[in-house]
Amino acid sequence: MPRAIVLLSGGLDSATCLAIARRDGFEAHALSFDYGQRHRVELDVAARVAQALGAASHRVVAVDLRALGGSALTSDTIPVPKARSADEIGHGIPSTYVPARNTVFLAIAIGAAEVLEADVVYLGVNALDYSGYPDCRPEFLDAMREVALRGTKRGVEGHPFELRAPLLRASKAEIAAMAVAFGVPVAATLSCYDPLGTAAAPVHCGRCDACLLRKKGFAEAKLPDPTTYAA
Amino acid sequence: MPRAIVLLSGGLDSATCLAIARRDGFEAHALSFDYGQRHRVELDVAARVAQALGAASHRVVAVDLRALGGSALTSDTIPVPKARSADEIGHGIPSTYVPARNTVFLAIAIGAAEVLEADVVYLGVNALDYSGYPDCRPEFLDAMREVALRGTKRGVEGHPFELRAPLLRASKAEIAAMAVAFGVPVAATLSCYDPLGTAAAPVHCGRCDACLLRKKGFAEAKLPDPTTYAA
Repeated sequence: MPRAIVLLSGGLDSATCLAIARRDGFEAHALSFDYGQRHRVELDVAARVAQALGAASHRVVAVDLRALGGSALTSDTIPVPKARSADEIGHGIPSTYVPARNTVFLAIAIGAAEVLEADVVYLGVNALDYSGYPDCRPEFLDAMREVALRGTKRGVEGHPFELRAPLLRASKAEIAAMAVAFGVPVAATLSCYDPLGTAAAPVHCGRCDACLLRKKGFAEAKLPDPTTYAA
Repeated sequence: MPRAIVLLSGGLDSATCLAIARRDGFEAHALSFDYGQRHRVELDVAARVAQALGAASHRVVAVDLRALGGSALTSDTIPVPKARSADEIGHGIPSTYVPARNTVFLAIAIGAAEVLEADVVYLGVNALDYSGYPDCRPEFLDAMREVALRGTKRGVEGHPFELRAPLLRASKAEIAAMAVAFGVPVAATLSCYDPLGTAAAPVHCGRCDACLLRKKGFAEAKLPDPTTYAA
């Protein structure tokens, strides 16, 4: 069975991506990051989601992006924006942007793909209902494809691996529908940037950009949202 | 004074690169990585070199590439090749290649450049007297430039930073000459993959690829080599 690396945060998008990799016939190796994120509880969520969706393995790689700072997600002094309007979410780059986060994650995924001899790296970014992050755009992914081709042993030896972002042009409503259709344990996933509750049973805050986009997705898809929101 | 991020391993090349950044008029912020390398003693060396060359700061960011494995430099079970001929060193990708290491390092440097508002990232790779690593080649660097342009806030907002590899086309002999000319504390630098001695006074093994290239550089430049080699 061919192998794939799947970046897995434990959110709805990456969980759906893992389900797609499995549906596509891959032995899926999930990769998560302990990067100093305030919502570190997502690592427990990712472990449960990886198991539920039949991942062959789940690795957590530590990379200390908190040492760089500059983001609401890796700093205790920059607050996570709450209750922003759809218009606000759609414009500009918010303080939850972690500088070069997806570049770092994909770089490590490229290394993992080399070592595990995976043919594909799956990434759950989407460029439509997103939060304005530069590292979720098609041009960025194309540049990373070139990096994977030029900067790896497999690439220069003529066996490059593929970088797939199957949700890139999907809306949150479409992702919600796919998640349900592909058997993602939706209630077990965690999209929130600032969750409450415990690691065993985290609760979505309901007011950060990620929660608002998640709610909007299920509402627009006219699907029941099994998520517990605090607000 | 404009700011630059300088990737600093503590080896001859990156130390020379830091000296060049200083000569170019930059407030230089050195960046090293605790990545699970067997020659972790290089972090102490880097701290001393950063101070000697007047770096404005020196950050060590932890990223656990040992969790991926697949390299002699991040594994205790894969030996570092010793006493290879110049012909062997010049061909193929050796076991000291760490999958996607420079991709990961540059990704984190790009994040640091965002946060510190640096205009330039300096990297001491060279493609001539190198060990066959794919991530030391010009095509790879061009791909990373595209990533920095497309995947960052500064890039998409029209203020991209520059990625400079001033040693890319230099021979080790030229680098040795530059190091001496620019006041690099050569004896304090450490190129070795498998050093002996202590963190305060590491000793080059003298037989790994990095040591052999370093010796060759000083010999070809007809410069006295102040390095202590065990063999």
